[in-house]
Amino acid sequence: MKTRAAVAFEAKAPLEIVELDLEGPQEGEVLIELKATGICHTDAYTLDGLDSEGLFPVVLGHEGAGIVREVGAGVTSLAPDDHVIPLYMPECGTCKECTSGKTNLCSAIRATQGKGLMPGGSSRMSYRGETIYHYMGCSTFSNFIVVPEIAAAKMREDAPFDTSCYIGCGVTTGVGAVVNTAKVEPGASVVVFGLGGIGLNVIQGAKMAGAGRIVGVDLNPDRQEWGRRFGMTDFVNPKDVGDVTQHLVDMLDGGADYSFECIGNVDVMRQALECCHRGWGTSVIIGVAPAGAEISTRPFQLVTGRNWRGTAFGGAKGRTDVPRIVDWYMDGKIEIDPMITHRLSLEEINKGFDMMHAGESIRSVVIY
Amino acid sequence: MKTRAAVAFEAKAPLEIVELDLEGPQEGEVLIELKATGICHTDAYTLDGLDSEGLFPVVLGHEGAGIVREVGAGVTSLAPDDHVIPLYMPECGTCKECTSGKTNLCSAIRATQGKGLMPGGSSRMSYRGETIYHYMGCSTFSNFIVVPEIAAAKMREDAPFDTSCYIGCGVTTGVGAVVNTAKVEPGASVVVFGLGGIGLNVIQGAKMAGAGRIVGVDLNPDRQEWGRRFGMTDFVNPKDVGDVTQHLVDMLDGGADYSFECIGNVDVMRQALECCHRGWGTSVIIGVAPAGAEISTRPFQLVTGRNWRGTAFGGAKGRTDVPRIVDWYMDGKIEIDPMITHRLSLEEINKGFDMMHAGESIRSVVIY
Repeated sequence: MKTRAAVAFEAKAPLEIVELDLEGPQEGEVLIELKATGICHTDAYTLDGLDSEGLFPVVLGHEGAGIVREVGAGVTSLAPDDHVIPLYMPECGTCKECTSGKTNLCSAIRATQGKGLMPGGSSRMSYRGETIYHYMGCSTFSNFIVVPEIAAAKMREDAPFDTSCYIGCGVTTGVGAVVNTAKVEPGASVVVFGLGGIGLNVIQGAKMAGAGRIVGVDLNPDRQEWGRRFGMTDFVNPKDVGDVTQHLVDMLDGGADYSFECIGNVDVMRQALECCHRGWGTSVIIGVAPAGAEISTRPFQLVTGRNWRGTAFGGAKGRTDVPRIVDWYMDGKIEIDPMITHRLSLEEINKGFDMMHAGESIRSVVIY
Repeated sequence: MKTRAAVAFEAKAPLEIVELDLEGPQEGEVLIELKATGICHTDAYTLDGLDSEGLFPVVLGHEGAGIVREVGAGVTSLAPDDHVIPLYMPECGTCKECTSGKTNLCSAIRATQGKGLMPGGSSRMSYRGETIYHYMGCSTFSNFIVVPEIAAAKMREDAPFDTSCYIGCGVTTGVGAVVNTAKVEPGASVVVFGLGGIGLNVIQGAKMAGAGRIVGVDLNPDRQEWGRRFGMTDFVNPKDVGDVTQHLVDMLDGGADYSFECIGNVDVMRQALECCHRGWGTSVIIGVAPAGAEISTRPFQLVTGRNWRGTAFGGAKGRTDVPRIVDWYMDGKIEIDPMITHRLSLEEINKGFDMMHAGESIRSVVIY
């Protein structure tokens, strides 16, 4: 079949809207008609050539929502007409990681996914006979996609696609980092570095968890209003204070119980660790740093009780947790609608990247 | 009163045995007659001038056991003739840290302890009228010492001093890192870097916790026998393998559930983190690195689920946990006797340092 898609033929070039050839689902795979997809910084990271393992030509996009249109042989948990969110972090339920009870990093299809291929070792997409790579197992910048059954989470049918798609990455990453990875408890103090699409979701996750102080840190003063909108209690602009780490330690009577780095800057990651309270402060890295960049600190920071961690997809097990987060959204426990600042057609997708780079959007969503 | 002590008059010089003037205990303080003290790498670290906050002249030593001889006004929890272990990590029970339930890093007397002084802001020790500094709130290289009541743990009277003193630092640090900080569970895989006085205690802590694989890593082949003596199941000499990190990951089917750095080498700290299993591996830094040295890694290591922590005094709350560890020793759950390889008189204390530097001793103990 044919599918309309925004293709990244090479790094650092605008996406091109073309019609691709798409093979149908094989055994254990499903065909999804996407209804909406968010544009995330990770897509830009790869498009800008910063990901040393990035492959081209590729269909980017990993934050979608749509409807199952066809299932391959052996598929039992999904059927046509099911509403789903594709998962870049699958959940097979049977690998060492899924059965460990300790992580969401399912390893079932990791090797092929990292190579831009389906589990069988080939791509389902091509353009004029040339292979087009899958991206993060999703490629949601294509109207139709094929993904493994284990990489699609069923969601309730009354959830709108144009907002729920954000649960496919940003919402789950931010809220999940708070509730799954850090396990923030009521009354805790929280510092969030970077108030973009992830940071705002960390803020609302912290609010939902009952955090006492929620401090947002951003160089962009416009983000103060955004942060307060979702539960931030204090705002710090590093431009306005001398040593931001010391400022936060003083402000929080010894430091933060939890901090979150939502930028991908290794210097900020250090600040996020070192602003934590001696004895128990936990810092969670969410942002994706440039290839080769390293984090550093004096080991004394850890020996005196700080804890340095990270999270991917908010520690969420996709098929189990994503439907629950959709419920939280539909039940009003978390908000998504105000964060979807722009709705675009697929033809306007490059504009979405431009607005993201300019800091004008929180989330732009492409509607198919 | 007078007390015989080994004094470090300056960095990098041998200790000198002299008679000091010692003032009696003030309010909230106790006078202890030490019966034995271990010699620890941390003493050598300070003596060698590596601690940027090291003060001289000072009485080093922080791993002792003895008998209370006199108590100051207001002391209620200790009485003369009580057998005690002095605590470089006190437990006041009332500070923010003690009441947090999250850390053992009592802050009650931290400011003065760091300056080599008693809580009132002065020293109890002098030599020919000159102030001699306290060390880590203990100074166990003096036959008699004064410490705050909150910095002495009562222990059962049938426990021998010449072995129990080791619980004042090495045993608690190693065993505690396993049971308090990492909370190693039965069947877990554990890697221990550095099989000295701390590393061997990590091994026996891991054995007590029921760990499945306990891998010791040391450049000194003689340490293999020592490790196996306490429960090590596998030995790796980095000289015998190419990439020690990759070797450990392969050996443990993806990496260690827990690793412990017991050396104080920042490069080894990185290996210890990176040999941990993706998704959940936790690395605990115990060793004290040279002043200014920094640890580094790619943030991807944390984002993919590894956890970087540290521990001081094995996460043990001194007055609560030390008596329990003395019980474990007396009940045969852990061993100490074989680790006390040398017993010395105070006059022989410099020999103890020499043997430690040469790797000839596991623990030398000075008997008063």
